[in-house]
Amino acid sequence: MKLIIGNKNYSSWSLRGWLACKQSGLHFDEITVPLFGEEWESLKRSSDDLAPSQGKVPILWDGDAVAWDSLAIVDYLADKVGRDRFWPKEDAARAMARSMVAEMHSSYLSLRRHCPMNIRARVQLPGLEDETRTDIVRILTLWAEARARFGKGGPFLFGTFGAADVFYAPIVSRFLTYGIGVPGFAQAYMQAVWEHEWMQAWIAAAETEEWVIEQFEHPVT
Amino acid sequence: MKLIIGNKNYSSWSLRGWLACKQSGLHFDEITVPLFGEEWESLKRSSDDLAPSQGKVPILWDGDAVAWDSLAIVDYLADKVGRDRFWPKEDAARAMARSMVAEMHSSYLSLRRHCPMNIRARVQLPGLEDETRTDIVRILTLWAEARARFGKGGPFLFGTFGAADVFYAPIVSRFLTYGIGVPGFAQAYMQAVWEHEWMQAWIAAAETEEWVIEQFEHPVT
Repeated sequence: MKLIIGNKNYSSWSLRGWLACKQSGLHFDEITVPLFGEEWESLKRSSDDLAPSQGKVPILWDGDAVAWDSLAIVDYLADKVGRDRFWPKEDAARAMARSMVAEMHSSYLSLRRHCPMNIRARVQLPGLEDETRTDIVRILTLWAEARARFGKGGPFLFGTFGAADVFYAPIVSRFLTYGIGVPGFAQAYMQAVWEHEWMQAWIAAAETEEWVIEQFEHPVT
Repeated sequence: MKLIIGNKNYSSWSLRGWLACKQSGLHFDEITVPLFGEEWESLKRSSDDLAPSQGKVPILWDGDAVAWDSLAIVDYLADKVGRDRFWPKEDAARAMARSMVAEMHSSYLSLRRHCPMNIRARVQLPGLEDETRTDIVRILTLWAEARARFGKGGPFLFGTFGAADVFYAPIVSRFLTYGIGVPGFAQAYMQAVWEHEWMQAWIAAAETEEWVIEQFEHPVT
């Protein structure tokens, strides 16, 4: 398998696709394409690897099968290695995990716009838009409910690390790097995600990247 | 099972959740809540049925399991009745179907904004935004490729009716009701979707609804 990703510092969807590949337990090669730079502009037009999504990342190639969206990657891999590695076994827990992941996939546009993932950043935002606050409260509410109902005392949303944690990992990064105040239960969850060995490996790589994307360093506030 | 949906004339995500339930072959009760009206505003605050998504539809209840997003509903049901009823068996076809569905789930914002689903409408738009045209071309390209590579001569995107058709059915409605010109292969596909017995049942119900939502009758152009 071959996973095409963007800059580790900025590409939140790439992080999701990459964590999903790690979670699969399968070997994969990773190819990093620096987003929005000249190389990316050129590859978008010429690279067969990037063609399925017209340049958007992540893209997973597995022989002639290609999944070009992070949620499709999760379920393509779940089909391949078994659903239980990604999703809770119990129906009610799995329904919630699938709904939370789908909500992450289509929602929280204000948080995503005003607080783009930037792993190296340590910024205290002067204030937050109301819509961004609403997104944050919604996410904290879902985390609290998932852990209370289905966390089984484990450190992650549904006990053990799975698709829901994969999908909310870039949110953990945003809350930490933008200094968003959160209640204690959320701090504990965020610490568990941040200290996960795969996250630590991703963070270390992000910190050594030299590319800087100005629009994510100075987001619209 | 109990499916909460919005107005059949306007709620494209409800149509997806409803078609998914039909595709499951399982019995379900449907509850229609008229969107954006007083009843909806009141229920959002008081109804346990609507609480998981804070009022957004569709919501599928199955005992104490609740899936509150159309894509989560598809895969919750696929978990329940077997994946093959929703997704192609072959890896490459399934990877594409999952990616197309995920792309529908998060993209095409211009088309969705300027051409909201309105099954009763027959409107010839004076012109389209460039971004809306880009969305349309992208969708037609995906339809063409899916049918050419994996259609097996059947009428639907991957041969037989499945999750990808469920997700693109509201696009078929938009193309027809807004008079979007499409090539012949797409016309044939759209006809197959439109004439599907479940679509015909949904359309008939939409046509008898008396609710009118002004913002979808006069979308921002």
